[in-house]
Amino acid sequence: MLGLDPDPAALWPVALEASPSPRRGDVPAAGAPEAMELAGAAVERHCLAAIEAAGPACVAVKLQFACFERLGDRGWRALATVREGARQAGLLVIADAKRGDVPVTASAYAQALVGATPTPFGEVPGFGADCFTANPLLGRDSLEPLIEGATAAGAGCFALVNTSNPGASDLQDLDAGGAPLYERIAALVDDMGAGHTGDCGLSLVGAVTGATRPERLGRLRELMPRAIFLLPGVGAQGASPEALGAAFRPHPAAGLVAASRSIVGAHRERGGDPALAAQAAAQELRTVTWNV
Amino acid sequence: MLGLDPDPAALWPVALEASPSPRRGDVPAAGAPEAMELAGAAVERHCLAAIEAAGPACVAVKLQFACFERLGDRGWRALATVREGARQAGLLVIADAKRGDVPVTASAYAQALVGATPTPFGEVPGFGADCFTANPLLGRDSLEPLIEGATAAGAGCFALVNTSNPGASDLQDLDAGGAPLYERIAALVDDMGAGHTGDCGLSLVGAVTGATRPERLGRLRELMPRAIFLLPGVGAQGASPEALGAAFRPHPAAGLVAASRSIVGAHRERGGDPALAAQAAAQELRTVTWNV
Repeated sequence: MLGLDPDPAALWPVALEASPSPRRGDVPAAGAPEAMELAGAAVERHCLAAIEAAGPACVAVKLQFACFERLGDRGWRALATVREGARQAGLLVIADAKRGDVPVTASAYAQALVGATPTPFGEVPGFGADCFTANPLLGRDSLEPLIEGATAAGAGCFALVNTSNPGASDLQDLDAGGAPLYERIAALVDDMGAGHTGDCGLSLVGAVTGATRPERLGRLRELMPRAIFLLPGVGAQGASPEALGAAFRPHPAAGLVAASRSIVGAHRERGGDPALAAQAAAQELRTVTWNV
Repeated sequence: MLGLDPDPAALWPVALEASPSPRRGDVPAAGAPEAMELAGAAVERHCLAAIEAAGPACVAVKLQFACFERLGDRGWRALATVREGARQAGLLVIADAKRGDVPVTASAYAQALVGATPTPFGEVPGFGADCFTANPLLGRDSLEPLIEGATAAGAGCFALVNTSNPGASDLQDLDAGGAPLYERIAALVDDMGAGHTGDCGLSLVGAVTGATRPERLGRLRELMPRAIFLLPGVGAQGASPEALGAAFRPHPAAGLVAASRSIVGAHRERGGDPALAAQAAAQELRTVTWNV
């Protein structure tokens, strides 16, 4: 899976070529709307070029909402543009937004991500993701509206179970009545996904399980036999896809390996054209992943 | 504090008056961009009217990002409009977005909420919140970039400690090595806020502590003597402000009571003009809160 977390300060050169000359030095505050527009358009070109290069080796793109939201409403327009580009390339679109809130607000997030919002002027469609990530800290009633929304849309919801960052251990590893907290979250995810399985036996309620701690995947697979595992942390965060076998055990589609900087930034290590480097990196990751 | 979580299907009549006649019945899909524009503009008018009515009795507005995001990029434009209106009314602006992610992404959220993003075309300013809410499930390294961003901007970060929804107990109440998880989160919040206190002894790292479980506030205040408590759940979620005394103990400004539907929707119970009902409800809440 191709992770897109565009940094406007590190875009591919092709994304900047169509722009007016980037300015150097101090930029007056009055230029902010123009900077936002130009940066948003450049982010779109960057992401579409990455999809063109690496997409054929991937099944999905994962859009890191934070990286778009820092460009305000222009960033949200870029999200929609990139979503359309991914869809035209035949890729699933995963909204990596990690939302979580009290039930009434979780319903609004479900409308925003996979549903639509009734208004006196007609229905306003949401982002239209195929899948999205969710934060389970607020408990079952906070996940229910998101799972309901996903069910209605034929989409998937990946709840954070054990994240890929070092700080994940601060709370997720705490002993919570005889098992670490992340195992308790895993049990919740499995329970909530039980009524939502498809023909292949996989549930629309999946789990984010960091690839950086592969030794835990066997136990997590036991606890969540029906869940698709979204496995971030490969590449820039140091995880190796070869160690992820347990994630794929029930079904070849039961694991989704997410790599962002190691594909889009591959030219920094490999040299050469960013698109060719990304293409090569994505194909190598695909080959390794299928052979696990 | 005035919570704004606008539902486009339940706006004040004054917000719809300036619009073209709302359509009835089925709306063709081609009308979606128009519906988005009209709904966004109506949401702006609704929120600005609520600020005008209830603002004088409040110190801050809390913007529920989910409710705006369901209108896509138009919703993000409405967020900016409402932020400006609140600022002109002399109110602090709290971005209730509950973000939380791995460190590199948390930095992007900090840019989006309180910072700015360098681009080749000049700096793009973020939302410019005075405070924002954050989800701590990913641990210390996920909060650090948010707190750094808040520090640089002179803003505040409220981490979720114990939320106001019934499902909060599913994970937050689990026994985590001799204390419930929410107390472990409280200790993390206190520790991370220690180096960030101002003249009044309060830290820029605050805590979201649901008003729906007031019996816990004394212990939470012991664990977080420096934190400002953001207290949602008053009104529609059933909590009573009279029970919140422990939150205010160290300093009259150490507690912020958040009410959304019970102010903006006060006319549903009280009858009459929504603005007058909201004004009365906000003033009553202010009086009760100051006397706690």
